[in-house]
Amino acid sequence: MNILNSQVEAYIEQLNRIAFIEDEEILKEMEDYAHKNDFPIIDRTVGRLIYLITKLKNPKLVIELGSGYGYSAYYFAKAMNYGKVVLTDYQEKNLSMAKSYFERLGLLDKADFRVGNAIEIAKEYKDIDILFLDLEKTKYLEAILRLKDNLKVGSLVIADNTLWYGKVAQDNPDDKTAKIKEFNEYMFKSREFFSILIPLRDGVLISSKIE
Amino acid sequence: MNILNSQVEAYIEQLNRIAFIEDEEILKEMEDYAHKNDFPIIDRTVGRLIYLITKLKNPKLVIELGSGYGYSAYYFAKAMNYGKVVLTDYQEKNLSMAKSYFERLGLLDKADFRVGNAIEIAKEYKDIDILFLDLEKTKYLEAILRLKDNLKVGSLVIADNTLWYGKVAQDNPDDKTAKIKEFNEYMFKSREFFSILIPLRDGVLISSKIE
Repeated sequence: MNILNSQVEAYIEQLNRIAFIEDEEILKEMEDYAHKNDFPIIDRTVGRLIYLITKLKNPKLVIELGSGYGYSAYYFAKAMNYGKVVLTDYQEKNLSMAKSYFERLGLLDKADFRVGNAIEIAKEYKDIDILFLDLEKTKYLEAILRLKDNLKVGSLVIADNTLWYGKVAQDNPDDKTAKIKEFNEYMFKSREFFSILIPLRDGVLISSKIE
Repeated sequence: MNILNSQVEAYIEQLNRIAFIEDEEILKEMEDYAHKNDFPIIDRTVGRLIYLITKLKNPKLVIELGSGYGYSAYYFAKAMNYGKVVLTDYQEKNLSMAKSYFERLGLLDKADFRVGNAIEIAKEYKDIDILFLDLEKTKYLEAILRLKDNLKVGSLVIADNTLWYGKVAQDNPDDKTAKIKEFNEYMFKSREFFSILIPLRDGVLISSKIE
């Protein structure tokens, strides 16, 4: 099932490709790695969405739950004027790749790299400005319930894969899909958050913690 | 041609409907008017996108080029902490409807209503924080070229209908479609703007004027 009409998707991607971006060469290398190794990344289109939102928000502290080798963290770090993005991953190998990319990108001073359980690590931080969810898809709701008190008023939650190949819109969801649907509904119904869902790539939910 | 898979579109719309919004009843009335009179409005989903972006931006001055009877202006005004949204339309009738809705919504102090040529009216203002384009689709590029010096650094341009029923992605575009494509390409290629295109409803381009 295509979420977006494939011609429209190609059109938007092509617009994103003609736009200038400072670190084109290294980004291209990171994207090529993803394609060759079948490693899921947010892609350029969602990356640019994150960049624009981060510019508007001007955060001090961004925490990523599930960073892989740092492709999404690039857009946060690049858009931040000060402060840090905390990258988390279970795999040491991913984060040392991220570290070496960040070194080449000149962004090391804007990042911390933490191997381990993402939710437990995030629990250590207060006053989170942006929480990015890209961990196991069954854990999104648990992550929010355990971390919402660590989020600043006016902070943002950005959650990737919230359309889950479009499966959230189909009947008889499997267990993983049902968990994502439960998360989406929680975020839209909650009086603590104001939420939207953007149908780029696999779906990006953006929520603002209400003041 | 569907831009979004119709099940996915219905899913996102349903999420937007379960969310709390303060002025539900009046909004519903405005939406019903659109449906009955075949009047094009941005709909709830794009409205909520605009609300969230406006909250993040915290603008003093929003100018709408093409306001109709005020449905999009509602989301700007509601999200603003201070300042004004300037509504423009060729038709006196539309703006007096907008005025009466804004009165009932308690938002009159946040709005100015100006009948006439939208671009000429906008030209009178300096330091625009958000420029919303929803005028004749052939005029988007002209509007930007004539108004970009009136935009603050870091300001936003939000342009509706930039996927134009998906026609921008098809071969042999008609004249109107070709003009929108030209506008989109200008906004993505320009080193003065950072742009993204969000495939909600008929496509929403969001650009930030680069600092």
